[in-house]
Order: sequence, then C-alpha cells, then structure tokens
Amino acid sequence: MAEIKYEILEKIGVLTESGRGWRKELNLISWNDRAPKYDLREWSPDGEKMGKGITLSKEDLVALKEILDRMDL
Amino acid sequence: MAEIKYEILEKIGVLTESGRGWRKELNLISWNDRAPKYDLREWSPDGEKMGKGITLSKEDLVALKEILDRMDL
Repeated sequence: MAEIKYEILEKIGVLTESGRGWRKELNLISWNDRAPKYDLREWSPDGEKMGKGITLSKEDLVALKEILDRMDL
Repeated sequence: MAEIKYEILEKIGVLTESGRGWRKELNLISWNDRAPKYDLREWSPDGEKMGKGITLSKEDLVALKEILDRMDL
C-alpha cells in the first residue's frame, strides 16, 4: 500500500477518548504537502495510527457550527 | 463484500456541497439496527453512495461545539 504523507500543523482540540484510548480529534493537517485542511478523525493512543475521519474546509466548519448551535445538545 | 444495513433516522443538516454534487451531511443514523449515532459523512448526489465519514456521540457533538465556539471562524 502506498504511504500517505501528512503533517499535523495544528492540534485544535480533542472531542472524546474511547475506552481503548483512541481519541477523536480536530486538527489542521497537510496531506501530501498540499494546502492544509481541517480534519476530524480518530487517532490511536500513541498518535501513530489514524482511524476513520473526514476532511473539512473552513466553510464546512462554519456551517457545522451553525448546525450545532441550533441543536438541543 | 458484506452489505451494510443502515437507516437515516434524521437529516440534521447539510454542511456544503462539492462541485460534483456530493454533500457533507450531519445525520442521525442507525447502523445494523443498533442504537442511532450522529454521523458526519459525504453522500453522493442521489444519496445512494456514502463516502468517508465519522460517527459521533452526543458527547462528541457537545465537545465539538465548544471547540468550534472558541475558534476564529
């Protein structure tokens, strides 16, 4: 499998941690030396392995914030 | 490949739509008849195909809201 090159430019926040120690994190990541994107993803306890996630633009975050603001959380 | 059974219980909001018409959506989904989870994921224009995403608990959403609130968006 080809290697994915990435650099975490900013650790923005940790949402929660699972029983196994995996953390859901919002980070700013550059993938393959491309322009950085926001990234919501699970990471292993040592931060070496990445789980499922989704890359998000600033526009996505603004829209997500508006959606969360109108939810009854 | 095994089939994934899912039911979208609530369409909460659409974040953005890409040029190809795929939408990033926050939904409440039951996977394989299990308890519903929040789900942030890309969906094809016809809503038939799902892309990458992450399931989130209510606790995740509360934490995410706090993180987004303190960002300069």
